[in-house]
Amino acid sequence: MTSDHTPAGTPGGVSGEAFGGAADDRAPDGGLLAPVRAGTRVERLTSDAAWVRAMLDAEAALARAEARAGLIPERAATLITRAAADLTVDPSGLARRARDSATPVVPLVADLRAALRATAPEAAAHVHKGATSQDIVDSAAMLVASRAVTAITAFLEAAMRPLAALADRHRDTVMAARTLGQQAAPTTFGLKAAGWLAGLLHARDRLLALRLPAQLGGAAGTLAALVETAGTETVSTETVSTGTGGTETSGTGAGGTGAGGVRVPQALALALVDLYAQELGLAAPLVPWHTDRAVVGELGAALAGTAEALGKVATDVILLAQTEVGEVAEATPGASSAMPHKRNPARSVLIRSAAIQVPVYAQLLGRAGEHERAAGAWQAEWAPLRECLRLTGGAAETAAELLAGLRVFPERMRANLALTGGRVVSERLAAHLPKDELAEMLRGDDPLRAPDELLDPSAYLGAARELVDRVLAAYHDRCP
Amino acid sequence: MTSDHTPAGTPGGVSGEAFGGAADDRAPDGGLLAPVRAGTRVERLTSDAAWVRAMLDAEAALARAEARAGLIPERAATLITRAAADLTVDPSGLARRARDSATPVVPLVADLRAALRATAPEAAAHVHKGATSQDIVDSAAMLVASRAVTAITAFLEAAMRPLAALADRHRDTVMAARTLGQQAAPTTFGLKAAGWLAGLLHARDRLLALRLPAQLGGAAGTLAALVETAGTETVSTETVSTGTGGTETSGTGAGGTGAGGVRVPQALALALVDLYAQELGLAAPLVPWHTDRAVVGELGAALAGTAEALGKVATDVILLAQTEVGEVAEATPGASSAMPHKRNPARSVLIRSAAIQVPVYAQLLGRAGEHERAAGAWQAEWAPLRECLRLTGGAAETAAELLAGLRVFPERMRANLALTGGRVVSERLAAHLPKDELAEMLRGDDPLRAPDELLDPSAYLGAARELVDRVLAAYHDRCP
Amino acid sequence: MTSDHTPAGTPGGVSGEAFGGAADDRAPDGGLLAPVRAGTRVERLTSDAAWVRAMLDAEAALARAEARAGLIPERAATLITRAAADLTVDPSGLARRARDSATPVVPLVADLRAALRATAPEAAAHVHKGATSQDIVDSAAMLVASRAVTAITAFLEAAMRPLAALADRHRDTVMAARTLGQQAAPTTFGLKAAGWLAGLLHARDRLLALRLPAQLGGAAGTLAALVETAGTETVSTETVSTGTGGTETSGTGAGGTGAGGVRVPQALALALVDLYAQELGLAAPLVPWHTDRAVVGELGAALAGTAEALGKVATDVILLAQTEVGEVAEATPGASSAMPHKRNPARSVLIRSAAIQVPVYAQLLGRAGEHERAAGAWQAEWAPLRECLRLTGGAAETAAELLAGLRVFPERMRANLALTGGRVVSERLAAHLPKDELAEMLRGDDPLRAPDELLDPSAYLGAARELVDRVLAAYHDRCP
Amino acid sequence: MTSDHTPAGTPGGVSGEAFGGAADDRAPDGGLLAPVRAGTRVERLTSDAAWVRAMLDAEAALARAEARAGLIPERAATLITRAAADLTVDPSGLARRARDSATPVVPLVADLRAALRATAPEAAAHVHKGATSQDIVDSAAMLVASRAVTAITAFLEAAMRPLAALADRHRDTVMAARTLGQQAAPTTFGLKAAGWLAGLLHARDRLLALRLPAQLGGAAGTLAALVETAGTETVSTETVSTGTGGTETSGTGAGGTGAGGVRVPQALALALVDLYAQELGLAAPLVPWHTDRAVVGELGAALAGTAEALGKVATDVILLAQTEVGEVAEATPGASSAMPHKRNPARSVLIRSAAIQVPVYAQLLGRAGEHERAAGAWQAEWAPLRECLRLTGGAAETAAELLAGLRVFPERMRANLALTGGRVVSERLAAHLPKDELAEMLRGDDPLRAPDELLDPSAYLGAARELVDRVLAAYHDRCP
Repeated sequence: MTSDHTPAGTPGGVSGEAFGGAADDRAPDGGLLAPVRAGTRVERLTSDAAWVRAMLDAEAALARAEARAGLIPERAATLITRAAADLTVDPSGLARRARDSATPVVPLVADLRAALRATAPEAAAHVHKGATSQDIVDSAAMLVASRAVTAITAFLEAAMRPLAALADRHRDTVMAARTLGQQAAPTTFGLKAAGWLAGLLHARDRLLALRLPAQLGGAAGTLAALVETAGTETVSTETVSTGTGGTETSGTGAGGTGAGGVRVPQALALALVDLYAQELGLAAPLVPWHTDRAVVGELGAALAGTAEALGKVATDVILLAQTEVGEVAEATPGASSAMPHKRNPARSVLIRSAAIQVPVYAQLLGRAGEHERAAGAWQAEWAPLRECLRLTGGAAETAAELLAGLRVFPERMRANLALTGGRVVSERLAAHLPKDELAEMLRGDDPLRAPDELLDPSAYLGAARELVDRVLAAYHDRCP
Repeated sequence: MTSDHTPAGTPGGVSGEAFGGAADDRAPDGGLLAPVRAGTRVERLTSDAAWVRAMLDAEAALARAEARAGLIPERAATLITRAAADLTVDPSGLARRARDSATPVVPLVADLRAALRATAPEAAAHVHKGATSQDIVDSAAMLVASRAVTAITAFLEAAMRPLAALADRHRDTVMAARTLGQQAAPTTFGLKAAGWLAGLLHARDRLLALRLPAQLGGAAGTLAALVETAGTETVSTETVSTGTGGTETSGTGAGGTGAGGVRVPQALALALVDLYAQELGLAAPLVPWHTDRAVVGELGAALAGTAEALGKVATDVILLAQTEVGEVAEATPGASSAMPHKRNPARSVLIRSAAIQVPVYAQLLGRAGEHERAAGAWQAEWAPLRECLRLTGGAAETAAELLAGLRVFPERMRANLALTGGRVVSERLAAHLPKDELAEMLRGDDPLRAPDELLDPSAYLGAARELVDRVLAAYHDRCP
Repeated sequence: MTSDHTPAGTPGGVSGEAFGGAADDRAPDGGLLAPVRAGTRVERLTSDAAWVRAMLDAEAALARAEARAGLIPERAATLITRAAADLTVDPSGLARRARDSATPVVPLVADLRAALRATAPEAAAHVHKGATSQDIVDSAAMLVASRAVTAITAFLEAAMRPLAALADRHRDTVMAARTLGQQAAPTTFGLKAAGWLAGLLHARDRLLALRLPAQLGGAAGTLAALVETAGTETVSTETVSTGTGGTETSGTGAGGTGAGGVRVPQALALALVDLYAQELGLAAPLVPWHTDRAVVGELGAALAGTAEALGKVATDVILLAQTEVGEVAEATPGASSAMPHKRNPARSVLIRSAAIQVPVYAQLLGRAGEHERAAGAWQAEWAPLRECLRLTGGAAETAAELLAGLRVFPERMRANLALTGGRVVSERLAAHLPKDELAEMLRGDDPLRAPDELLDPSAYLGAARELVDRVLAAYHDRCP
Repeated sequence: MTSDHTPAGTPGGVSGEAFGGAADDRAPDGGLLAPVRAGTRVERLTSDAAWVRAMLDAEAALARAEARAGLIPERAATLITRAAADLTVDPSGLARRARDSATPVVPLVADLRAALRATAPEAAAHVHKGATSQDIVDSAAMLVASRAVTAITAFLEAAMRPLAALADRHRDTVMAARTLGQQAAPTTFGLKAAGWLAGLLHARDRLLALRLPAQLGGAAGTLAALVETAGTETVSTETVSTGTGGTETSGTGAGGTGAGGVRVPQALALALVDLYAQELGLAAPLVPWHTDRAVVGELGAALAGTAEALGKVATDVILLAQTEVGEVAEATPGASSAMPHKRNPARSVLIRSAAIQVPVYAQLLGRAGEHERAAGAWQAEWAPLRECLRLTGGAAETAAELLAGLRVFPERMRANLALTGGRVVSERLAAHLPKDELAEMLRGDDPLRAPDELLDPSAYLGAARELVDRVLAAYHDRCP
């Protein structure tokens, strides 16, 4: 099948669509249906082009690692790296060609080899040596994820800065805490902001703690082709050291066993995995993880947790910005196509749209596969992984915008606290009044009669200030 | 904010990416991570461009319906229709501008009005009259879905044709039925194919039965602005008839009440909804469904069911194509990047990748919203709706390719049936032998000794032929 | 393994728990973690005991159908039916014994046969004849589902009665429509109630339209054992008629072919399936559906849709009951353990807890299985199916309670409408004022100055009344 | 409403069910629909009774912590602890009473107070002091989870022991690695077992790393009632020390500020949280986490990861046990109700049924809530949390049984490797033969002709031994 995919099974009954042309083919998804990430940094960092780039980066890193391990000539690695950097690939075209093998690596390697054959034929044979398609796709996914996660944590930090300022500034701004939608007892806006901050801080730390590994196992996860190469090639270096794990071997020849029972080609192949991870800036895996997707599951869970933490802020802002509540407003509320007066909490709505989706998609990440390569579950991981990354990234970037300009209305908070005629401190009154008397008072809607000191919401804030301090201390400690 | 979205909150700490350029912005997703739909027809039918086109179609249909109802001049509708058809929109740019209002309709209407002001200023004021953003987005979604569903059913029919032939041809091809992975009793490949066919047929019928409605409710779902217009404009037609429901009113003026208690402007607004649905080729809704998303949920469920039915075929093909089973093979198996001998069931793997994803995404469709417009849940519906459409569409198109060339190996089926030494008919033997004697025979691995007639798998096929007939009769009846 | 399950792999390191005893074993789940369905009717209709009962019903129905078809003696069917009715089964013990075969039917059939051997040994051999475990489990699931769905639709109808009254009574009760949490334009509480009613009505109709089929295919889905029996047993009836499909055959002996190519035992087996479905009060399937789970998927989707429709009511009630909004209240709001004044919308919270869960669980329903019986996916369907049924049932019963007593505060609705100083009709003003003038007016927070007629919310209700009428007409038409 | 829940809205149209009685009410779910956990240890540890016990444990721990902090008399704490231990509660009845307040804590505290009023009235007033319902439910959930996780990790360790032995014993047992269902290249069963082991080891470590915190925040999350108590009660201890964080305060009276700006009642309340956590054996939280559910989300993700790791083993066993593959078998395969010869991989099927469900349910864990208490999302967390715990626990216990007796057939593995006539080492041949020559050889089905050394699968195992060593070293290091 050629790269111009014309399906054999195209039925005659489907009428031609009224639009079309090259532009449509190039932009099946440019963000229109997900404004939360449209034009954002992580959208770019996870584009098809970025993914192709990462796959080429993986091929180049493999060649360089193999050269460092003495398995291929230094010059071949240099040429492969250069060709990978220069290769122009149309992602959509590659995607169509990927249909024949269910992996984009087969056509991509073909393109890379073809480019080299034209200019440096001696290097072409060294492309993709000892690797299997999944090694490249998984390493590329981790590379893309790593770059995206770096951007996401930066946006979380950008969002935390104004949040910390809000928590600090509104330490004594009294407002109603609400449970099940009802005013429950007094709290402060500082504590609310501190709660949001604690959520984002925790999410960021979890993202930072992720350890994203490279993937290299070869066809069966045994590194057989690499061991074969290591056993037959003249090993040019006396000692292989990765500098990380201290795996040292001396080149005593194919299949030979060095002192202490070390089999040299095997040790070399294992050392190569570490070198490859180094070249990619990724963690070295314990063993190949072709069908053990725990690391992807944990990445997904961390992104879902981040989206939830961002969604918590957005949901509270939407509720606080309700016409009848009016305690906060976005800096630049959204316009309506029909109602000139509307001031929609547009950024919060966008963030929330992401927070709803990400946990759902994340459940597809981490699904174990059959045998040594999954027939479906792995391939079903690619798209939702990107979606989790870019929706979370878009939500984080949007939250940074939102929080940088959030408007707070303390006087409205105080006015709302007065709506219950003092009932918002009924918990306190219960500690001071006989039960029957209190029940009698609470009946009806009349304002309560009790000493002002007891009824003053700002006198019943518990340890709100101290809790704000705790969160701010943790924030300043971990985000110096 | 301009259309060049430069977020205020961009942190300095995010290092510049090594790649980039206009191409990346235009193709955040060109199918690379979902080869199952890369370059397929439904991918094109659901592209950003298609979605923009459908929104413009909705605006034009609204204008034409309003002209038919006498609410705006005929000429304005003509001009709006033409301007909508001619408008060139960059979907990615529109998506970025949508961030300010959380809806792409606000900037799209602005563009359409601007285009008209330049050429036909008298028509500009009639754009989007009486509608709210959600009216346009929802109607466009139904339009896109309707076009995609038409294509999907056509591909399902294309897949069913070879399937029906397989069921017919292999009516007597004996093979092992397998339960929990174990050979259970004999069946036929014809019945297996008929089972797949029944699944696809049912899925297609369910898609055909969908009734996708237009959306028109105005700002609050009361049609207030349209009633206002109907009450103040000079109604140019004596009688308004939609030709569908027979809603007839005579123009007796603003707010007036005709004979029988009919309030004319209100009746006109309701009639307009039907006209609008007619112009779009969509069903007319009972009432506006801004936050009652049942129709979207049912669309999602039907797509999930279709994906499951396709996934059933793919899973069985993958299992039957296992090296140790070898009973079927894809016509053009996929190559491997490392193993020259591999013949991967690539199309089945692609189909299965879709079948795993769609039911997960579909759970996001149909979520009810708060009050008269959801703040997050609705916006979280757009992307998974497209994903369900195009993954199902890609899977259906891929299945048509797969089934058109599926290779079947009856001799291998028969050989596999012999593996158990006759135990595959133990159920039958149990009806003829004393329990103890049978248990004794089944012990160990030796071939069973019993009359050939009893041991012959092809003599224990029950009503397999009749069941095939039933399915084929249903198929020919419903797909004549 | 005995029924006292003592796992071989029990580790010594797990310390004994401090509580225990028989009671705990009997009540791993009595509703504590799901008060929404605790003690409700559908919880009872879907209990383990109900499920066991339905499995025994299926075995008895099979025997009776086989007697009607002449495959087993009439008397055996009578004895089996009686024994099934009398059998006392401990569901938890059965569940433990089910671990050995991954199906509860194996130990249940053993118990039923043992009971018969003691009293009617001649009938014991006719138990479960020609069936496979999945036939019984699936038929029982459909039976349980059918009974539960009947109860759910009744509760939906009980919820709709007060809703229809609310829609009717509050046809002219003006309130604010809210989009994205902001007051948007006027609407009526009647229309809001009508919207809820339309959602419940649609959900009920969808449940009523479900066609839940019996399952009967035998070991391989070919009905082989039944055909075998039909071919060897003396068929005692001259003519077999199901009365439904008109399948008629005359008993010409084993494997024989009657006039017109009809193979008699096969026809008899197919007719038996219809008789079996009749005995169960379920629909007759086209073909066995062991691994085509579309019907379960559709049941799940209909339940998810119902839960969403109920959740929509609950979410709106929670938002309308907020302290700052105060437009509705539950009849008997929930108490708080800490705050004496709290009046929590407890029933709405319960309903919403169900609405959040059901769509998630429903995604597990309908997953296609491998080959002729799934190794995992099918078994993963049982628990979420019950959960969907009883959570939806509990939510429906709770909603009937909620709506029977919902309190509505029209004066608060009107007061809230005044909060924007007239801006809630800005859409209307836009049709009457020059754009610049309006924009100037909307700036700031001052009440707008415009003719009272224009500012009156109750004069800008569009077709709200007519939309209410439409919904009520549909309701009265479909729920007479 | 009494505990005999008779819903007001019960419709007359629901016909009485044919079964019933007390037994049904007590066992709506005794495990019948989830044999994977029926009768298992974690099922007991997470029963309704266990949950009630944990809530009472939380109330008792609160009283003891308050006594240690000097907020209530020592004797009251002793009496409350005793009454909590002695209280007999019917979980189902409690669940029904919970419907009125949407939380089981309201009726539970009422029962506990009633019990105390009868025997020790002076202590009754000190029950639940300063806490809100969610403090008790969340703390109980963490307690139940903590106990369940301890059992799960023990079962994982029980499963790992035989796995490590398998990896060690089968280090040189050659078999085919399979990718996309096709034989790909040789590997060893030792490496396959090591891969399973690595997955379980990682899952266990992740569970061990969880830090499950107590919950204590009071009505609004400010600890206000506790601060109030601390400010008004005579603090009997001079110094409060938790022994963990060194929070020290001296009792200088209500609202007073000690040296260094420490407000004493506030400090005391914060210290009390640590004491409470100590009493429960749970971690101390940074701040109350009523609506920041990250910890629940992480627990869910860790359980989902564990279920996936167990499911990976089960899926591979099912595939390896297929009739046509026959490389492993369960020790005691499951019987069939219809086919006497069937040897079903019943335990693997059960494990897989759990692995399919848990990741789906886990997505409901960790959803952030509105304001200071969620109206629905929190209540929707309870049931799926238990389900994740007990399904994972059941799967782990079942896996320990499965692996303790797994039968391995090396000769069948070798025979299967021969099926491809040497093609399984095509990757190796590609390194030694010209491309065209190899392609020519691979064509057709004839056995390949090449030097035996090249064709021997056991000579192409790469670093399989070394990878096994790595995993075993990690296992012995972390599970000494």
